[in-house]
Amino acid sequence: MMKLYNFHASSTSYRTRIVLNLKGLEYEYISIRLDRGEHLGFSYGEINPMRGVPTLEVDGVRLYQSPAIIEYLEELYPDPPLLPQDALGRAQVRALASIVGSDMHPVNNLRIRNFVRDTYKQDADGVAAWIGLWNQAGFSAIETMLRADKYRKGFCYSDAPTIADAYLVAHAFSAVRFKTDMSPYTEINAVIANCNALKPFADAHPSKQPDAGG
Amino acid sequence: MMKLYNFHASSTSYRTRIVLNLKGLEYEYISIRLDRGEHLGFSYGEINPMRGVPTLEVDGVRLYQSPAIIEYLEELYPDPPLLPQDALGRAQVRALASIVGSDMHPVNNLRIRNFVRDTYKQDADGVAAWIGLWNQAGFSAIETMLRADKYRKGFCYSDAPTIADAYLVAHAFSAVRFKTDMSPYTEINAVIANCNALKPFADAHPSKQPDAGG
Repeated sequence: MMKLYNFHASSTSYRTRIVLNLKGLEYEYISIRLDRGEHLGFSYGEINPMRGVPTLEVDGVRLYQSPAIIEYLEELYPDPPLLPQDALGRAQVRALASIVGSDMHPVNNLRIRNFVRDTYKQDADGVAAWIGLWNQAGFSAIETMLRADKYRKGFCYSDAPTIADAYLVAHAFSAVRFKTDMSPYTEINAVIANCNALKPFADAHPSKQPDAGG
Repeated sequence: MMKLYNFHASSTSYRTRIVLNLKGLEYEYISIRLDRGEHLGFSYGEINPMRGVPTLEVDGVRLYQSPAIIEYLEELYPDPPLLPQDALGRAQVRALASIVGSDMHPVNNLRIRNFVRDTYKQDADGVAAWIGLWNQAGFSAIETMLRADKYRKGFCYSDAPTIADAYLVAHAFSAVRFKTDMSPYTEINAVIANCNALKPFADAHPSKQPDAGG
């Protein structure tokens, strides 16, 4: 069975769990408690050189970086497809995913938040302002793209979940946690509601994971 | 002919130019002068909702986000391949690319540097320290991964360029520009030297672009 080194509240972990669940894949959940700095210890550095989560272990081979892991899962387990069949559609879905995965999440993740707090002496409101600024830029762009796509039916692309929905749902959870105002993004909110009504998304939610709370 | 909205010194533009050149694709170069804030104007916002570069325009359709654009080019123009033939190899190459594309570049790009300078009142040394910290984490992880791969022969993966080399070469250029010490990364430096000896890489260099200097 595959092993997923991950953490309940990590949005890169969450997006990967959504994809695993959508594909109907079972995996062993191995908790790396970011809140206790377990990713910074020697033993996790031996598992993942970047010390990031998630790491997916498949037959003893470790795969890093959720964008690479998600593409791997899509290639190995193409049913149900989480990318469109046509190249332009795939480019659209990957662009939406990349706005989250490159422009939004990386500037808001734990190491960056901690640095902004500790080195630039930002209190909780200051950190939330930093987070909110980059979230607003990204969500606004995604909302614009969703509104411009006249063929959409309830999800980021067409009428079924793609990897873009996995990225978006997971990041929106983090955004709300850090008090980003989601009210302007009516299309995004509709997509998120449709996704969260599906069991693969609901089961991947941070609150449902074995290391939640505690 | 495809149009590439881009900027000579942008590393996401540079990585995309490398891929276009490796594929032997011609394109119209449309300069978006980030140094003059052209990406923030109304007209570029109509072209790209995220206001990022590059945008690739293909038969009037605009593609966003370099990771999505690069995957599109790989799918449409598979010769020469810039991803390995096997899924685990592709996961390795995409992981290396994602360390650059998710963990390194986004926290160091123009909008973030400007915010750190203007809002957190960091001088040039302070901004360079911010940049250097995240570059060091990423380059160290990549160096470890390159050293662990016993099948490599001169490039990030095996014996020919992949998308990982495009990401790495472009980001290293930016890192040197912002005074990141590259001396610890002997494997990375060897890869970069091999790449830059190839015409598709050399022709993509920022100094060779129509909007260089000025």
